[in-house]
Amino acid sequence: MTDKNRVWRLRKRPVGTIGDDVLSFDEEPIPQPADGQCVFRLNYLSLDPTNRIWMSDMDQYMPPVALGDPMRGVVCGTVVASRHPGFAPGDLVSGLGVWADYQVGAPPMIAKMAAPAGVSVANAFGLFAVVGPTAYFGFIDLGEPKAGETVVVSAAAGAVGSIVGQLAKIKGCRAVGLAGTDEKCRWIVDDLGFDAAINYRKEDVPTALKRACPKGIDIYFDNVGGDILDACLKQMNLKGRIPTCGLISQYNATGEVPGPKHYPMILMQRLKVQGFIVLDFASRYPEAIAALGQWMQEGRLKFRVDMHEGLENAVKTLRMLYTGENQGKLMLHVA
Amino acid sequence: MTDKNRVWRLRKRPVGTIGDDVLSFDEEPIPQPADGQCVFRLNYLSLDPTNRIWMSDMDQYMPPVALGDPMRGVVCGTVVASRHPGFAPGDLVSGLGVWADYQVGAPPMIAKMAAPAGVSVANAFGLFAVVGPTAYFGFIDLGEPKAGETVVVSAAAGAVGSIVGQLAKIKGCRAVGLAGTDEKCRWIVDDLGFDAAINYRKEDVPTALKRACPKGIDIYFDNVGGDILDACLKQMNLKGRIPTCGLISQYNATGEVPGPKHYPMILMQRLKVQGFIVLDFASRYPEAIAALGQWMQEGRLKFRVDMHEGLENAVKTLRMLYTGENQGKLMLHVA
Repeated sequence: MTDKNRVWRLRKRPVGTIGDDVLSFDEEPIPQPADGQCVFRLNYLSLDPTNRIWMSDMDQYMPPVALGDPMRGVVCGTVVASRHPGFAPGDLVSGLGVWADYQVGAPPMIAKMAAPAGVSVANAFGLFAVVGPTAYFGFIDLGEPKAGETVVVSAAAGAVGSIVGQLAKIKGCRAVGLAGTDEKCRWIVDDLGFDAAINYRKEDVPTALKRACPKGIDIYFDNVGGDILDACLKQMNLKGRIPTCGLISQYNATGEVPGPKHYPMILMQRLKVQGFIVLDFASRYPEAIAALGQWMQEGRLKFRVDMHEGLENAVKTLRMLYTGENQGKLMLHVA
Repeated sequence: MTDKNRVWRLRKRPVGTIGDDVLSFDEEPIPQPADGQCVFRLNYLSLDPTNRIWMSDMDQYMPPVALGDPMRGVVCGTVVASRHPGFAPGDLVSGLGVWADYQVGAPPMIAKMAAPAGVSVANAFGLFAVVGPTAYFGFIDLGEPKAGETVVVSAAAGAVGSIVGQLAKIKGCRAVGLAGTDEKCRWIVDDLGFDAAINYRKEDVPTALKRACPKGIDIYFDNVGGDILDACLKQMNLKGRIPTCGLISQYNATGEVPGPKHYPMILMQRLKVQGFIVLDFASRYPEAIAALGQWMQEGRLKFRVDMHEGLENAVKTLRMLYTGENQGKLMLHVA
């Protein structure tokens, strides 16, 4: 345990792309645990699209990070000191923390975690902490898939999207993914088993969707909003479902973003559009982890971590999410 | 039974307001029933916002009326001839028919109807054929009201909206209605028991909503889409519901209508937006009719018919819906 702590603090609300002056990287004393707390050292930091929401003061699902506060993140670490009976030095923990080498934590924000046999800590953290339950509950609970239906997922080579497409196959559906490079499109079809992929940067999305979804779309799992949402709305089948997981195409927008012009399809086709965040399902995490773990052990579910090094690279690495440069779950290895 | 039949036929798709050349009013022979059909004389014609959708070739929930075909409508009539064992001359029938003095009908498009004791045929047809079940299933099934919640309904002095607000009160909710004249606003508060009314033509809707809904909006029953939808989206509470019944503000649009710019609230507040039409609930009509009938007999539910005379006035009368001139359920008395 050194005597130096590095902390990313939010200094400004981002406008457009996250600029270098939005966060500061400060050296501070290592915190000590108060009664009922532990202090843990950060091993892995999950970088997620929602980080950009927390930095902003847009309408959002929990309070934004206050200016001057440490940046919030999904973290995995090792306990180094504890005044909480449930944690001892050496324990592996994960949950909602901050972008800092050392930090205090306590339930319910953090909990002990263990990687299943044969799964690395990084993979277990990456899949089970946020991404896997998000895909699982969003697709299965809100999407209500039935065998033979057609499922479209955007950001399909991303962490959540790549799981959703594989869950669609497990449930007997046709899986169609949208991604931004030919390499990603090949990966989701050749390695993950999607039935079709659309490179939305090269193809006309409405035309490509018609070709890839000859029977229309029953479930559109929305990670991006914007034009892709609009194109999917137009091709939804009667009583289709649109679980709304993210709207990443809009997070960096500086002006007003127009709404989907095919919104009336919600009425005409009697669609159900439903927003969610994974925390809504916190009490049911064990169900998701058990199911995902089993599918992974059976070789039916693949998961790819895009690991980068060094807490000092957090902002630079996070930006990759909004340009689509990441390939799989974006994470930082810290210690 | 005269030997003359008057039939409105669709000649053009409407552009903007329904022009005089969109339908023709023709004299034709009275049809004869084929095996399994009856012929009935039109007593009442229901005029509904959806009529404008059926005339157009926009994306819609059933095939549009073909050019040259009689205009489709919700009808109530008296059987004059029958070759169907379930119908005899003199029987009162209602269902989906056409804008004509005499027309053929058969199940499942039409069924026998009876007005409950003490309720006129016009009121029973007006409330039970479409409007009541629409309000009932949209609000109760999709809205999932809980006592103490705040319910906002647009077109609140309209046929469906006026019922929804009263159902909200019956379910122990706060009911807030939007309407386009002070007289309508007074009517829904003073006569129907809404807690508050907003004249959307005179007031700034976001400001008025904040005042009328100090605890935010839990259910927005959408009849209109457009700016009012957008203002409500912005003030929805966590896990709010938006049953989508109509988007009348958009039906007469000639250009592209922008989508709701506060669409991201669906994600941020984890809303459920769900479109429906009453035909989705056809098998459960008796449940709605029983409940509505009882509330009406108990004096807890009021219903107002805005009755006009003469099949020749169908188009002129229908236009009132889109300008908001009607006061209650718009109907035509024919014979």
